Amino acid sequence: MMIVMKEGASEEQIQAVVDRIEKAGANAHVSRGQFVTVIGAVGDADSQVHEAGLELADGVDHVVPIMKPYKLSSLQFKKGERTTIEIDGRKLGGGVFSLIAGPCTVESRDQLFKSGEQCRAAGVPFFRGGAYKPRTSPYSFQGLGVEGLRLLKEAKEEFGMPIVTELMDVRDIDDVLEVADVIQVGARNMQNYNLLTEIGRSGRPALLKRGLSATIEELLMASEYILKEGNQDVMLCERGIRTFEPGYRFTLDLLAIPVLQQLTHLPIVVDPSHAAGRRDLVLPMSLAAAAAGADGIIVETHPDPENAVCDGPQAIVGSEFGDYASQVNRVAEMVGKQLEVISA
Amino acid sequence: MMIVMKEGASEEQIQAVVDRIEKAGANAHVSRGQFVTVIGAVGDADSQVHEAGLELADGVDHVVPIMKPYKLSSLQFKKGERTTIEIDGRKLGGGVFSLIAGPCTVESRDQLFKSGEQCRAAGVPFFRGGAYKPRTSPYSFQGLGVEGLRLLKEAKEEFGMPIVTELMDVRDIDDVLEVADVIQVGARNMQNYNLLTEIGRSGRPALLKRGLSATIEELLMASEYILKEGNQDVMLCERGIRTFEPGYRFTLDLLAIPVLQQLTHLPIVVDPSHAAGRRDLVLPMSLAAAAAGADGIIVETHPDPENAVCDGPQAIVGSEFGDYASQVNRVAEMVGKQLEVISA
Amino acid sequence: MMIVMKEGASEEQIQAVVDRIEKAGANAHVSRGQFVTVIGAVGDADSQVHEAGLELADGVDHVVPIMKPYKLSSLQFKKGERTTIEIDGRKLGGGVFSLIAGPCTVESRDQLFKSGEQCRAAGVPFFRGGAYKPRTSPYSFQGLGVEGLRLLKEAKEEFGMPIVTELMDVRDIDDVLEVADVIQVGARNMQNYNLLTEIGRSGRPALLKRGLSATIEELLMASEYILKEGNQDVMLCERGIRTFEPGYRFTLDLLAIPVLQQLTHLPIVVDPSHAAGRRDLVLPMSLAAAAAGADGIIVETHPDPENAVCDGPQAIVGSEFGDYASQVNRVAEMVGKQLEVISA
Amino acid sequence: MMIVMKEGASEEQIQAVVDRIEKAGANAHVSRGQFVTVIGAVGDADSQVHEAGLELADGVDHVVPIMKPYKLSSLQFKKGERTTIEIDGRKLGGGVFSLIAGPCTVESRDQLFKSGEQCRAAGVPFFRGGAYKPRTSPYSFQGLGVEGLRLLKEAKEEFGMPIVTELMDVRDIDDVLEVADVIQVGARNMQNYNLLTEIGRSGRPALLKRGLSATIEELLMASEYILKEGNQDVMLCERGIRTFEPGYRFTLDLLAIPVLQQLTHLPIVVDPSHAAGRRDLVLPMSLAAAAAGADGIIVETHPDPENAVCDGPQAIVGSEFGDYASQVNRVAEMVGKQLEVISA
Repeated sequence: MMIVMKEGASEEQIQAVVDRIEKAGANAHVSRGQFVTVIGAVGDADSQVHEAGLELADGVDHVVPIMKPYKLSSLQFKKGERTTIEIDGRKLGGGVFSLIAGPCTVESRDQLFKSGEQCRAAGVPFFRGGAYKPRTSPYSFQGLGVEGLRLLKEAKEEFGMPIVTELMDVRDIDDVLEVADVIQVGARNMQNYNLLTEIGRSGRPALLKRGLSATIEELLMASEYILKEGNQDVMLCERGIRTFEPGYRFTLDLLAIPVLQQLTHLPIVVDPSHAAGRRDLVLPMSLAAAAAGADGIIVETHPDPENAVCDGPQAIVGSEFGDYASQVNRVAEMVGKQLEVISA
Repeated sequence: MMIVMKEGASEEQIQAVVDRIEKAGANAHVSRGQFVTVIGAVGDADSQVHEAGLELADGVDHVVPIMKPYKLSSLQFKKGERTTIEIDGRKLGGGVFSLIAGPCTVESRDQLFKSGEQCRAAGVPFFRGGAYKPRTSPYSFQGLGVEGLRLLKEAKEEFGMPIVTELMDVRDIDDVLEVADVIQVGARNMQNYNLLTEIGRSGRPALLKRGLSATIEELLMASEYILKEGNQDVMLCERGIRTFEPGYRFTLDLLAIPVLQQLTHLPIVVDPSHAAGRRDLVLPMSLAAAAAGADGIIVETHPDPENAVCDGPQAIVGSEFGDYASQVNRVAEMVGKQLEVISA
Repeated sequence: MMIVMKEGASEEQIQAVVDRIEKAGANAHVSRGQFVTVIGAVGDADSQVHEAGLELADGVDHVVPIMKPYKLSSLQFKKGERTTIEIDGRKLGGGVFSLIAGPCTVESRDQLFKSGEQCRAAGVPFFRGGAYKPRTSPYSFQGLGVEGLRLLKEAKEEFGMPIVTELMDVRDIDDVLEVADVIQVGARNMQNYNLLTEIGRSGRPALLKRGLSATIEELLMASEYILKEGNQDVMLCERGIRTFEPGYRFTLDLLAIPVLQQLTHLPIVVDPSHAAGRRDLVLPMSLAAAAAGADGIIVETHPDPENAVCDGPQAIVGSEFGDYASQVNRVAEMVGKQLEVISA
Repeated sequence: MMIVMKEGASEEQIQAVVDRIEKAGANAHVSRGQFVTVIGAVGDADSQVHEAGLELADGVDHVVPIMKPYKLSSLQFKKGERTTIEIDGRKLGGGVFSLIAGPCTVESRDQLFKSGEQCRAAGVPFFRGGAYKPRTSPYSFQGLGVEGLRLLKEAKEEFGMPIVTELMDVRDIDDVLEVADVIQVGARNMQNYNLLTEIGRSGRPALLKRGLSATIEELLMASEYILKEGNQDVMLCERGIRTFEPGYRFTLDLLAIPVLQQLTHLPIVVDPSHAAGRRDLVLPMSLAAAAAGADGIIVETHPDPENAVCDGPQAIVGSEFGDYASQVNRVAEMVGKQLEVISA
């Protein structure tokens, strides 16, 4: 942490800052420049110094953190080696590109199984489907709940694809652990810290969606809540952020992919469906995400989107999903990824 | 809901939209303009029409919702009458202005009681303090938990001020109900729908903070989750939104106050402490919030901010709190509010 | 334009709105729904109705525009046909993908010619370089001005590549027209309407950058200022928008590409250099832009970025530019574009 | 400037950074911490070091600027003394609060003179009115131009109020200087650097509006373009920034007032009309701005808003303007400002 003093700060003010740094258990290094003096606080006591509130001490202009606040998720922590998540022999990350596909929400056995067939036929390694749906309106369909989980379990047995499904309420974790191979945390729950901690304790792989206005650093801090419990298998998911642009639901932030890859060893997945909100935009955004180096794409498809209960307009039509998947895979391969495609 | 057709949409396309509206249970009114045709879907089946995904139907340009999606929180629902929340004879809303003050987090009996004395001396009607603290970093202090709740209960008995405290985890609701007169929902939990539903069921008054990037409409939809369970006592709280400006932690959106007052009967409270992040900015922002017509202000004060465990730089110094309170109250009175000030 | 009345609006209020619409020269169509009444204003007098300020008339809830405000730039205006811009037989748009490359700023004859050689060797069709540089700080280098334009003219003669260069001040237009084959309008000037009008009158092709916080619609309205003067050759350029994310300079909004292509016939170009701000991010973002369907990419390269006067960190190293160009072209080709690559 | 090295950066990498700093003419101070090494670049050569592109040098994690980039506008430059702008004996800033009022745009002699009478009757010291109007659409009314300036001159002679009017095009500066006592720079021109420079050279006081997505620092850098030409009389104007919120046109950022007052000696003015977009929101936002410590408010009023050519819905009705002004003045006085009210 560097404490930048105001121009003309007095010796007494400088000394008072030094004293407070040392009282907090760190060492102070004073650097006197032509205009301003900068005091470095060095030691393992970064957070104590932070809590000391030096921002408002007399003569202080501002305080600059030096150390990154995340540790276990940093690329340095694994000395530059990237994490590959492996489930039933199917991989994602560390150079391997995978699709995660399926319907937005589980509606019925028939819908789920038709979608499962279409995804399996397209070589998709991971199957997704929501039993609990966070909805802006209390008057909208909220998901089938436990019955949805039961159908997902049937589908898993039928198609052999590991299941990605969302957990919204910490009280449902045991039910979700019955079927989920990957527990999804929605954007609105990215900073639901107790939920993250419980998922960390469960040891089950997680897919953590970036909050609508979460910074890259906050996303990594959220993953840290899972990692600190000993659970290393976290995929980070960019799904669109909130900006001033009214022309689409969210702004898909693909620059986050290479930036995250410089900061963390965790795999980066992109959800193009929710930002776009319409299926004709999902393919170009999926190709772009693959080209930018994403480790995976989580995408919605439905056998009959016109009659979908939820988010039909953004679902890839099931009968066209094979073509979608092969185009996306082709771009991922071109930028050097190894493809995880399961032959039927 | 209005469906705007593309220029040059064919009669077949128009008829297909009409058919789908009627199939969803609504009536379709077709308006043919010089350039475009607009089809109104009228009836009680707005949401079914919405789910029908007409945005992507052939010939459709875009779809415009007409009805507001919130009902119970709308000003119309109470025919223009404003809600006053009353606890132990102390009021907030409906023309009455109240301060809610106290430390960010409960640190110790000594700290809490000193703050309680200072707040009581300033005539503050409601006392705040956090036992559970949502922290960006898992390595930061997370609150005293149950012990914090116990201390709040002691303080309540001592000072007679109703208690406002945060609930983060639905599993803690019974503990929190033991002491909380108003349950606070933090910005990061604004869309934690199951938490909102349980608070609704508890019947206890709630203070619902606006999410960092939540729209006014989403805030009202979140309150709807509480109201629909039969709990009418919800205060909405503006606490700063996320923008591009790096010069402060959040941008306090005071325009939200009069805009919300046109839309909802619920009282509007402002939290100036978290947006500003530094106490020298808290007074001007509090005065501004009162001048803009807020029904209350929730503010942090600490007897000894330099040694606060958390967010010390933004706490009003306890010994100066009386002066702060009287300035804020004076502005609220000037714009026509009745003041809730408790004489010691 | 649709005027949505409040629930319970009276017949007098409805009639008053109808009267004002008709007074403004449009026809009013009244649609009475179960809850609200909607009044459509139909006719060629949309803007007069708009100026009538019906938003605040008694009983009106809100007003919804129906017609898009841009005309000449809309895809409908050219009945779905896309514009190809052609200069000296080199094309961009309408299915043809082109690179525009060169240094951020013209520094010297030597620098410019080295960069010209490297770009020509990479098959680049269009050469870019700034003589006038808009700089946030008045204390930064502001470009070589007229001397820079003179050097660009020499380079054009030497390398035969059409020149893209920025015009900042309407007083410099004659000087810039001496050398520019494409006049660039920077993001900060996107709504400098008199500049746009003069460029429109010059008839010279333009590259119009999206403002830092301009919506898609505002970008199209800005292009309309050029088009309305009879100049059809406008390329729209996405270069990153301002968001809350502090991790990079701007958030590159690639979703704007397919969305713009649904709205306008004009070619869409992407500038990945300024958003990223560092060259290691420029390649992945360029590949992503090409994959998303961009018609061209405008990118900075420098023979010796470490000694660049301006924005060195984001310039592709000249000796590596050929490799960069071939990777980007390969992705553009994969998504179906015809490549404009000039053999040396 | 501080260069923060990566964990594990080698001695060679550290030395290479030191060499580059010294080559750029600054001194390097190396601070070795437990985890990372920080190198301070000290000297008058901050910008050269900046241009050296150390962000991408081997072993460098990131670079932190220490010095603020603005000088003449900083509060330190005037040693804490605040600037009062005085025109014809009427003051704004440095403890004096003033209203600037009048119509959005000059429409006719009759309209302008009626508004002038209403403003004079309300004791308004400065009169505003636009002759040149920047409009998003080329199809909207663009202002009366030179004829508007002529009418403003007549009004100035009639009412004795100094005139605030906008300059959009540098070619019009001589015409505008004929009548403007304060030259307004619109938000879209905040970074039109040549315009700023010419205004600086003219020596005429300026009112510089913050760009829609301009940071506080960028606003100060823009003012620096005027100040560096020797013109010290610049008012900074907050007029709403662009955020994700669709509920209003712009988000009025009142926190910018006290924050700017800590950074600059220049007076801070607020424009509540454009953010709100509707007159019923203008009064609460004006009261809030005054309470937050603004030095002035620039507000739109119209004798007959229903028939205004432009922005009628946001204009205070002329017959109610006296009441508006007295309420706003009362709040400004309560927070300690001296009022500039001209008795008729």
